[in-house]
Amino acid sequence: MSNPQPDEKYVLGVDYGTLSGRAVVVRVSDGAELGSAVHEYPHAVITQTLPGSDVRLPPDWALQVPQDYVEVLQSAVPAALRSAGVDAADVIGIATDFTACTMVPVIEDGTPLNELPQFATRPHAFVKLWRHHAAQSQAVRISTLAAGRGESWLGRYGGLISSEWEFAKGLQVLEEDPEVYAAMDHWVEAADWIVWQLTDTYVRNACTAGYKGIYQDGQYPSEDYLAALNPGFAGFVRDKLEHTIGQLGSPAGTLSARAAAWTGLPEGIAVAVGNVDAHVTAPAANAVQPGQMVAIMGTSTCHVMNAEELAEVPGMCGAVQGGIVEGLWGYEAGQSGVGDIFGWFVNNCVPPRYVDAAAAAGLGVHEYLTELASEQVIGQHGLVALDWHSGNRSVLVDHELSGVFVGQTLATRPEDMYRALLEATAFGTRTIIEAFNASGVPVTEFVVAGGLLKNPLLMQIYADVINLPLSVIDSQQGPALGSAIHAAVAAGAYPDVRTAAAAMGRVRRGVYRPIPENVRAYDELFAEYTTLHDYFGRGANEVMHRLKAIQRTAAGHAPTTASEEMEPAL
Amino acid sequence: MSNPQPDEKYVLGVDYGTLSGRAVVVRVSDGAELGSAVHEYPHAVITQTLPGSDVRLPPDWALQVPQDYVEVLQSAVPAALRSAGVDAADVIGIATDFTACTMVPVIEDGTPLNELPQFATRPHAFVKLWRHHAAQSQAVRISTLAAGRGESWLGRYGGLISSEWEFAKGLQVLEEDPEVYAAMDHWVEAADWIVWQLTDTYVRNACTAGYKGIYQDGQYPSEDYLAALNPGFAGFVRDKLEHTIGQLGSPAGTLSARAAAWTGLPEGIAVAVGNVDAHVTAPAANAVQPGQMVAIMGTSTCHVMNAEELAEVPGMCGAVQGGIVEGLWGYEAGQSGVGDIFGWFVNNCVPPRYVDAAAAAGLGVHEYLTELASEQVIGQHGLVALDWHSGNRSVLVDHELSGVFVGQTLATRPEDMYRALLEATAFGTRTIIEAFNASGVPVTEFVVAGGLLKNPLLMQIYADVINLPLSVIDSQQGPALGSAIHAAVAAGAYPDVRTAAAAMGRVRRGVYRPIPENVRAYDELFAEYTTLHDYFGRGANEVMHRLKAIQRTAAGHAPTTASEEMEPAL
Repeated sequence: MSNPQPDEKYVLGVDYGTLSGRAVVVRVSDGAELGSAVHEYPHAVITQTLPGSDVRLPPDWALQVPQDYVEVLQSAVPAALRSAGVDAADVIGIATDFTACTMVPVIEDGTPLNELPQFATRPHAFVKLWRHHAAQSQAVRISTLAAGRGESWLGRYGGLISSEWEFAKGLQVLEEDPEVYAAMDHWVEAADWIVWQLTDTYVRNACTAGYKGIYQDGQYPSEDYLAALNPGFAGFVRDKLEHTIGQLGSPAGTLSARAAAWTGLPEGIAVAVGNVDAHVTAPAANAVQPGQMVAIMGTSTCHVMNAEELAEVPGMCGAVQGGIVEGLWGYEAGQSGVGDIFGWFVNNCVPPRYVDAAAAAGLGVHEYLTELASEQVIGQHGLVALDWHSGNRSVLVDHELSGVFVGQTLATRPEDMYRALLEATAFGTRTIIEAFNASGVPVTEFVVAGGLLKNPLLMQIYADVINLPLSVIDSQQGPALGSAIHAAVAAGAYPDVRTAAAAMGRVRRGVYRPIPENVRAYDELFAEYTTLHDYFGRGANEVMHRLKAIQRTAAGHAPTTASEEMEPAL
Repeated sequence: MSNPQPDEKYVLGVDYGTLSGRAVVVRVSDGAELGSAVHEYPHAVITQTLPGSDVRLPPDWALQVPQDYVEVLQSAVPAALRSAGVDAADVIGIATDFTACTMVPVIEDGTPLNELPQFATRPHAFVKLWRHHAAQSQAVRISTLAAGRGESWLGRYGGLISSEWEFAKGLQVLEEDPEVYAAMDHWVEAADWIVWQLTDTYVRNACTAGYKGIYQDGQYPSEDYLAALNPGFAGFVRDKLEHTIGQLGSPAGTLSARAAAWTGLPEGIAVAVGNVDAHVTAPAANAVQPGQMVAIMGTSTCHVMNAEELAEVPGMCGAVQGGIVEGLWGYEAGQSGVGDIFGWFVNNCVPPRYVDAAAAAGLGVHEYLTELASEQVIGQHGLVALDWHSGNRSVLVDHELSGVFVGQTLATRPEDMYRALLEATAFGTRTIIEAFNASGVPVTEFVVAGGLLKNPLLMQIYADVINLPLSVIDSQQGPALGSAIHAAVAAGAYPDVRTAAAAMGRVRRGVYRPIPENVRAYDELFAEYTTLHDYFGRGANEVMHRLKAIQRTAAGHAPTTASEEMEPAL
């Protein structure tokens, strides 16, 4: 930790992840990260039984407890301040980012329904975490009806509204627990709920309103459309959703006396409008100019990019005006399985002699396989794989797709398959980049954030496959740094997020550069990937859908989606 | 061992495998196996360096030493006699079966060229084992020229002459070592060479002459055709190959004084015409009637079946008059990887916790995975695989094909993939059966021999997939028993092999019966297999061929085939 200077000012960035919240103290002048602390949610992710009760949840449910989020403010924020050795009086603002779409049903004053005694044992009264996947049937109806009616907003979301988003989850509440639905005065993104707790003010952020709330060109889906979904849903936007929208980086309000007491921060400092973890990472990597695609590569990959123009890029997750920074169209795309696939392989497909050899070499199995795979010439393994073990988000938007391996022989070794999976995710990224390029919003720089950037072979493969130099974020806590940048802007230290990002964002440019002969070799393998991608993904052979249907029948399950995609959280 | 009766007569069956020879003493009256012994070849399979020299072999070579075969007669036969407690004077005949096509270059008296000092360090002077795969370029020319000229015999071999067979291996000798070629007076199947050692008489057996030597309708490929392959090859049939042909079960001669001394058997007893391991297994399982398909299931599977009619079944390995028993057309088909694929999976794709759990349960990993897989409902794993890790022999006759897995997710477990591979080989068998059925030579019974019959889950899957009851051979040493049956016929104890098979063959019929609901479930998955089979195997997407080409370029290898299919023998 560098020594705090007397005239420096500081901001707090708080990143709310799936299992914990992380607070980071950041210097306003240059983005230096001076201290941090993590608080794990006591209830983590609830998938089996409601806390303090014996109410069991159906498959595909994933709930959280709002009070866990408040504990992060009470615990991690003061701890981060202490670890930074910063005087709280020098902190000028705080901002948060959150998983999304994570939804809290509340009454008028913001109290979550699960905190009301009459709803304490009602599953629908709890927070629905982003990965609650039990609203699939609602999502299908939402998309199908919109397509049938030619709703103009559908194209902004690649033609498909996810079961994870505000409308599907809201419709599930209505249809499965109308009393809870009736009792909730607002259906609030957790990203905004936490800001409400800090400021006593409810402001809806432009990011989730657009990406998760279908807010486009100043309006939501029409009452007429909603009534056609379900007559009881006609008033959903008007009664539950609609609220003042705040632009990213703007102040939502100031820190309340209550929140000041929780955090140890000065009452009255700026609190920024809420935001989403992936999206705040773009300014953290100083990558908010048009054409700079930021890939947050972890268990899955989220791609965010700004552009001057609106284009309908096939298979993107959403295009939202001001969705990443004010004044630009923010695009989001994603790969639903990346690190998760490598992890699955290491846990399920690597024999003891490899695990032992890794241990003997003092390496993790990932590192050991990476080392072996690094020794190969491109194409030497004779394999091509499809990276759909967790479905395909972009560009096919189909969670019923699954993984493929082609080319295994009796000589195929674990490192061959591991490398083929690394390459498959790179091919998936190239497919997304090519969709953007072909749609008139070209990708000019590829910036990597997230845990996977620590694998240099993977990074070089990406550079070679996409034929672009790779920049990498220069922070271990990208989202929290991104939030801190928003806090600085909300506090008036910078005129806008782009300016703040230039001063506080941390990136190393051109760290990995494409090697021309590798680029040529991968062009050949990418052509094979694309042929298989289109064959299995675009209807020529619907075998994956049929296998899923057979599997459900065999397992005696009702149709669901994505349940097998997620690792158990606990 | 039962107690020998004074009036009983006995025969010796000797099975020459890839790494060892096994002798079994069998009672003529009922086929009871009274004693056996195994002798491992001291030189095993030579793939690296010639014995006693520093001459290194190119890739894909596989040689053997003929003297090793003689040692089996000297060692295993007397040991088997001792273990049976049988008086050698009561033995009335001996017969052998061999791997094929395994070729010995000899001078006029049968001496192998490698035993001549001037050729002791010449690789081409040694035995070319069946799995010597370095004559691939010759094989391609043989098939292509035959197709171009419309040679009538080509259809009898599914349209492709293998690099493993007599012509390709012989042409390789000519083209790579013309001196060895010029010095060899006969190009002899090891199956016949060993009988020559026993009898001092060279008789060519009808089985390998047909299946491996392209002997059809009383003639070999024409001199004109051979000259077009290579002018120096024009006399190949006349000078090296052509010889008296003996029918299976006939005596080739009687035991010589020299061989009597080696074996401890009486001079002058009957020695049957040579034969092939897979083919002798049909009478051993008493399955020599038309429509009885015998599958010898081990690392690979060989299918043999008799029929009254000649039909050209797409993708079979060969149809030969009297190729299995005299008077019927013998058909052969095969799957180039079966147990090998399961073995590859267990060695390369099963994580430590499974290996540990198997050990804790006192099970092998195969048994443990089988136990877990047994608990599944059909289709529950959501997978379909193609069993081409070692290429596809029947019905596609393409060794450049490779394995495919479709349907893997983050929830896919090792037992899921293992079961999918078991099923894939069953689908491969069904594909072969359907080709026979569609060609007018229907399969009416499926009889299993070989090591894999010990896996009851695999057997039930086969019964369900092919919708036929499964009979299983009731002997651990099927080929040797089959040879013993031939010995009994050659000795005149039975009028023909079919009669002897009925008395001495050992089979349990209907051990596994198809379960109707399983049959229906597998029909659905087999349809998926077939779609993928045709897509990857019949030209719609030549990705596997391109991946092999890329792999060769990457590895800097000259084009070869099948090299990656085989496990190293030593």
